[in-house]
Amino acid sequence: MSQTQSKAQDAAIRSQAGLADVVAGNSSICFIDGQKGRLVYRGYDVAELCEVSTFRETAYLLWYGHLPTRAQFEPFSELFTGALQLPMETIMVLKLLPRRATPMEILRTGVSSLGNFDPDSGLTDPEAVQRKCTRLISRMMMLICASDCIRRGKDPIAPWEGKTLAYNFLYMRDGIPPSADAEQAMEVQLILHADHELNASTFAARVVASTMSDVYSAVTAAIGALKGPLHGGANKNVINLLDRIYSPQNAAPVVKDMLSRKQKVPGFGHRVYRTTDPRATVLRAHAEKLVKGNSDLERIYETALRVEEVVTTNTKVYPNVDFFSGIVYRAMGIPSDLFTPIFALSRAVGWTAHIQEQWADNRIIRPRAEYVGPMDQKYVPVEQRK
Amino acid sequence: MSQTQSKAQDAAIRSQAGLADVVAGNSSICFIDGQKGRLVYRGYDVAELCEVSTFRETAYLLWYGHLPTRAQFEPFSELFTGALQLPMETIMVLKLLPRRATPMEILRTGVSSLGNFDPDSGLTDPEAVQRKCTRLISRMMMLICASDCIRRGKDPIAPWEGKTLAYNFLYMRDGIPPSADAEQAMEVQLILHADHELNASTFAARVVASTMSDVYSAVTAAIGALKGPLHGGANKNVINLLDRIYSPQNAAPVVKDMLSRKQKVPGFGHRVYRTTDPRATVLRAHAEKLVKGNSDLERIYETALRVEEVVTTNTKVYPNVDFFSGIVYRAMGIPSDLFTPIFALSRAVGWTAHIQEQWADNRIIRPRAEYVGPMDQKYVPVEQRK
Repeated sequence: MSQTQSKAQDAAIRSQAGLADVVAGNSSICFIDGQKGRLVYRGYDVAELCEVSTFRETAYLLWYGHLPTRAQFEPFSELFTGALQLPMETIMVLKLLPRRATPMEILRTGVSSLGNFDPDSGLTDPEAVQRKCTRLISRMMMLICASDCIRRGKDPIAPWEGKTLAYNFLYMRDGIPPSADAEQAMEVQLILHADHELNASTFAARVVASTMSDVYSAVTAAIGALKGPLHGGANKNVINLLDRIYSPQNAAPVVKDMLSRKQKVPGFGHRVYRTTDPRATVLRAHAEKLVKGNSDLERIYETALRVEEVVTTNTKVYPNVDFFSGIVYRAMGIPSDLFTPIFALSRAVGWTAHIQEQWADNRIIRPRAEYVGPMDQKYVPVEQRK
Repeated sequence: MSQTQSKAQDAAIRSQAGLADVVAGNSSICFIDGQKGRLVYRGYDVAELCEVSTFRETAYLLWYGHLPTRAQFEPFSELFTGALQLPMETIMVLKLLPRRATPMEILRTGVSSLGNFDPDSGLTDPEAVQRKCTRLISRMMMLICASDCIRRGKDPIAPWEGKTLAYNFLYMRDGIPPSADAEQAMEVQLILHADHELNASTFAARVVASTMSDVYSAVTAAIGALKGPLHGGANKNVINLLDRIYSPQNAAPVVKDMLSRKQKVPGFGHRVYRTTDPRATVLRAHAEKLVKGNSDLERIYETALRVEEVVTTNTKVYPNVDFFSGIVYRAMGIPSDLFTPIFALSRAVGWTAHIQEQWADNRIIRPRAEYVGPMDQKYVPVEQRK
């Protein structure tokens, strides 16, 4: 290699804070076309999947790389249904956790504890891993709903066998059957958030998996990453902002003031997308449908549209997935501190797809650091230190 | 940028499976000189720290970047001592976990649960973070010892205030005061394993921290990574191999057979060190001292020396930290499934040093993947799929 090349390479591998634009490996799970604003799972456009597929089928697609035949889908679907209960000890663990623990903290401990109870614990063959992954998705849903009931002083509500995960998630909050529109919007949320390439939580899951650790360790790590406000949690900030702006006519002054003070408007911009996040377009349509007939929700939705208009005409920054997702959840009566746990439930499909892909061609993920600290320090006994 | 440079850069960022030799950022915590076989914490040679410092002082050094004065060290030391108890609920959680759960799985769930109970939970100022880090170290030790007692059907043993962590760790297993040599060797183990730059568990902790998540989420992730057999656990494989070889005269045939079948001999080789891991040299001396007078231990130690001789004369691969560490633990009566939890206890100091360094100049860690999957797949209804 020539010296010029070597220097270019040196610069390339040194200057990437946050590993921005560094390719950490190959993947055939998810493709983000940041320029055109397209998101693709295993070759299928996600906007199309939202219209014609289901969360469960999308999970199959992400895990196995192709859509299932009916003969493949039935036993797969039964794995989900068969795991619609929590070990009694897990419920007891949830009840021991303090009231002030946040839903994401509870989810992290709960999922780690589910790993202790998984009947396939310690098994590493692909079939056992697949059973763990389906079990994990069903039980994560049960965990989120059960701990939400427990914190409200209620007993956990049992799910309806034969219903979708989206239906059951909404049903288990209060025991009230959701509307078809709400179920459909929830299904779409779960499909849309299911994967997004090497985002920080998915990358954390792959780093953990690369030591040949287990599914629960990797997913617990990913939950911890998603808990961070720079990753999950933006849709909560959006809804807080919209509540603060309150009505469309206040949008322009508030947003322009934020922009003039170089404040980040939550729900806009993305490290990869250079145009509108395609997921925002899908969720905008569902938000529009769900708010109809409720004047408070309609006001929030109209406020959001006005905020979008002001931000996009004044900057080159476009709405991302978080911008309309909070309104969709609000319309379903879901409190804002459950937004990120739902994100986790959906993304757990992507996390586990990536974990399995990592294991199919594993090398431990171990980068280097450039040491910039002192050298040749002399140890001085404590009484001589200043 | 010229096309030549651009291609070189392209190759540089594409060809790094496992991010091997990719610099993921600057750090002033730990320097590994892989050529000379030196390990340096904050400018201090680790071999020297093992002789003259303590684990607690090394923790101060790794966290604050300098050795403490007496006035700085006393309140710091009290933070450790003040956290030498577990929340009652954590003990109850430990008792709920099934017997078959491994110590590392229990540690992962236990540490995550400690996060739910931390009195500084939710606080992010540096002092609160520091209190969480000291509390975490003391409580991790308590967790490991308490769950080890519980699995043996015993009540957890209370620690001795005023004693070192090394002393208490050994004491709390059976309530028997350890010998001075054992305490010293344990102290050295804790110092030696405290940091090692961007190994997979530390990198996992930094990825999680980079979303501005919390200390417990990042450390829980790191425990999950360390649990993997490619990361923690090698010293257990070493001791298993030595037990299988049994005596020095069997070493050459067994090892040569392994080498001829291209099997990896556990405890040898390292992605960074190109010579003897300096930690192996330190531990060899402690192993030699501890085995004296016990014929079984002496036989294992002699067997290890012979294995080392055969491997190093037949290959260019040198012993790493794991090669002698298992013998040291065996000499203290520590069962092999606690080797990795002790590693975690020590490395938690490094994890938390890296978490704090990440937060001091944070950018979310989010690399890219090279998409190699199919494109433009057409969705086909299930009844038409083959």
